[in-house]
Amino acid sequence: MPDTADQLIEARWIVPVEPAGVTLEQHSVALRGERIVAVLPRDEARRRHPQARVTSLPDHVLIPGFVNLHAHAAMALMRGIADDLPLMRWLQEAIWPIEGRHVSPAFVRDGTLLAAREMLRGGITTCNDMYFFPDAAAEAFDHAGMRAVLGAVVIDFPTPYASDADDYLRKGLAVRDRWRGHPRIGFTLAPHAPYTVSDDPLARVASLAAEIEVPIHIHVHETAQEVAESLARHGVRPLARLERLGLPGANFIGVHAVHLDATDIDLLAHHGCSVAHCPTSNMKLASGAAPVTALLERGVNVGLGTDGAASNNRLDMFTEMRHAALLAKVTTLDAAALPAHTVLRMATQGGAAALGMADRIGAIVPGKLADLCAVAFNTPETQPCFDPVSHLVNVAGREHVTHVWVGGELKLEHGKSLLQTGDAELLRLAAVWQTKFGS
Amino acid sequence: MPDTADQLIEARWIVPVEPAGVTLEQHSVALRGERIVAVLPRDEARRRHPQARVTSLPDHVLIPGFVNLHAHAAMALMRGIADDLPLMRWLQEAIWPIEGRHVSPAFVRDGTLLAAREMLRGGITTCNDMYFFPDAAAEAFDHAGMRAVLGAVVIDFPTPYASDADDYLRKGLAVRDRWRGHPRIGFTLAPHAPYTVSDDPLARVASLAAEIEVPIHIHVHETAQEVAESLARHGVRPLARLERLGLPGANFIGVHAVHLDATDIDLLAHHGCSVAHCPTSNMKLASGAAPVTALLERGVNVGLGTDGAASNNRLDMFTEMRHAALLAKVTTLDAAALPAHTVLRMATQGGAAALGMADRIGAIVPGKLADLCAVAFNTPETQPCFDPVSHLVNVAGREHVTHVWVGGELKLEHGKSLLQTGDAELLRLAAVWQTKFGS
Repeated sequence: MPDTADQLIEARWIVPVEPAGVTLEQHSVALRGERIVAVLPRDEARRRHPQARVTSLPDHVLIPGFVNLHAHAAMALMRGIADDLPLMRWLQEAIWPIEGRHVSPAFVRDGTLLAAREMLRGGITTCNDMYFFPDAAAEAFDHAGMRAVLGAVVIDFPTPYASDADDYLRKGLAVRDRWRGHPRIGFTLAPHAPYTVSDDPLARVASLAAEIEVPIHIHVHETAQEVAESLARHGVRPLARLERLGLPGANFIGVHAVHLDATDIDLLAHHGCSVAHCPTSNMKLASGAAPVTALLERGVNVGLGTDGAASNNRLDMFTEMRHAALLAKVTTLDAAALPAHTVLRMATQGGAAALGMADRIGAIVPGKLADLCAVAFNTPETQPCFDPVSHLVNVAGREHVTHVWVGGELKLEHGKSLLQTGDAELLRLAAVWQTKFGS
Repeated sequence: MPDTADQLIEARWIVPVEPAGVTLEQHSVALRGERIVAVLPRDEARRRHPQARVTSLPDHVLIPGFVNLHAHAAMALMRGIADDLPLMRWLQEAIWPIEGRHVSPAFVRDGTLLAAREMLRGGITTCNDMYFFPDAAAEAFDHAGMRAVLGAVVIDFPTPYASDADDYLRKGLAVRDRWRGHPRIGFTLAPHAPYTVSDDPLARVASLAAEIEVPIHIHVHETAQEVAESLARHGVRPLARLERLGLPGANFIGVHAVHLDATDIDLLAHHGCSVAHCPTSNMKLASGAAPVTALLERGVNVGLGTDGAASNNRLDMFTEMRHAALLAKVTTLDAAALPAHTVLRMATQGGAAALGMADRIGAIVPGKLADLCAVAFNTPETQPCFDPVSHLVNVAGREHVTHVWVGGELKLEHGKSLLQTGDAELLRLAAVWQTKFGS
């Protein structure tokens, strides 16, 4: 029987995200191995699949696992190391000096393990990462059993990881070769930003990404200064320069995209680009507010990202959803802007589509991978509940996540981590690095 | 011996808030009964007070209990009942009709019990409340062992609570008489807003508040529409009208204060008024962003409020602190705006000062009441920690609160509620009211 399920997850509510705007009550998700085979009423599921193992979630809403569309996971080791500074001072005075002294494969592996634990605990099942030593990050994500897309970072200046743009690209492609075909690890080309990568390597990224069919993951239009400097140096805005170099396309993920004028939005829409909206980072670094409602109106796909823990300072898609909704409402002065279902879609399917993975993740639909997150509304602070999707955005926190599955495998059960690396070991690793930074 | 302590609370960090900007390491707070008698190094505290009971918080930061400077606690029963609507439609189409049908002493008691549990769980030890049937709210807060300041609400139109402004005032004063002298229950006069209370009752509130020496708690300048309508109807902006009627003074708590021009800020500064900043509510209802940094620069005292759970939808000062910081940074485009110590001060001492209670609460200082909150940084998502005050604003959530004391009495211990009304009973009450609203 082709659709025999070995596992049933039955929940008070299921929000499949696809189709949009739907909340199912007292339904079950039927799994076989790593895949969803059906979504059906609870009693029917039990009748059809009497042999399946049942997980019962009587007070919970079951949603697709979150897709964190922009992170620098290893920076969890620098959580809160420097606050209350604008982007360029924060990078130049705080972050880059520490990275220059300390970044190594061990740093990246330990930091990514810490971040993966934090993300999985909050229902994030896929992370689109950009950092040095992506091989070490891939090892950590794989060890944690999380789905991740590693960026081959490219930047003009030397770091402990690589010496120049050629070196970054060569090392990145070697990482891609090593992990090709892995069921949970993917790959992007990740030029850091228009202001840190020159024309030649950007053009090579464009042609290489088309050739090997991977997304391009890049910070763009994050600050007003970035746009002004591009106009001064290149005579065009950053996105126009990237267009000249052939980067924008359906595989393009523009991170932040705060300072956009009408031509920038046209460009993104015209090329079918995606945007990774990072509202917390944009607010904390005082970069500004991305025009998310205008992007969505023009049909630009938008996902949500946490950015790194040094500029957020949590890797938490519940706060990103809430901040996206609140920031859109207050900046458009329209309380109806970015309603809860739209925000949830951005945090799941939007990210999946940006990564070219919408056929596999981002929605609870038969045939897709069983990346799932259960959130319990059985505490005084989550009651009453009139609309579980409103509650996901406006009430719940990651502390209400009880169960997380990646490809049908439990990673969190009743709020307890099932990861190989235990919390005590992660705390020890964090302490070791904190001591090193101080010395 | 006058300073003999019967209780020592020793913590990894103590942030007393007064003096400003200080973080003590490995210190203890010594208590006798409900009061703080000393703050001193841990070992010295043990030597001086060998007989005291010791609570050891090795991974925690100890801070003053939060003062929620603006809430409608009973509206916890309407948590998330209507989202994505602007203020006036939200009030007129969703909130007021339900209140008209259902508000009663039982509603207020049950809703306030639910809210008190939520607030205490998140370290809020004092709530400045404004709602109908304040007597029932006082009973609930008292039952929960929480500190609360009840507003005698005044509004022109009839509700199930009272028929006209006279009736509201008479009933409010009776409540005040009943609770006078209670150690944990205080009182304000709470005209709802300039647009819902006419001149005569506003003038009576002004003279009465001066006579009986209580604060005035009122929504002001929440929306652009409110300011425009006041100009059209009264020829002046709302605050100028209130000034004409004698309301602004050192006992004046203006809630929201979003749409302020330079003359409004002058007026607030000149009269020594306080502002209750409610960033989440202002964003969610698309009211706008209050000019908090401008107010602070002019010396206006600012506290933080959650507003009611129907417009937030959580009663959580951690998210208010974070939203205050983020909203100030993104609206001023200054990443240094509202640094973490300032935000923490607003959430504690700022609220205490607004209520005229700064001599008793809002800081960890000998002589003040032991309203305290302990937050644990011993989980992967809170590590590393370079600055515990940054962590309180940017990393922690109320789920990291482990211990809460009100006047030296434990209300939360290792994250477990010690309230008389258990969680199962609170969930039952919430369900009963949810069913009623639907019928």
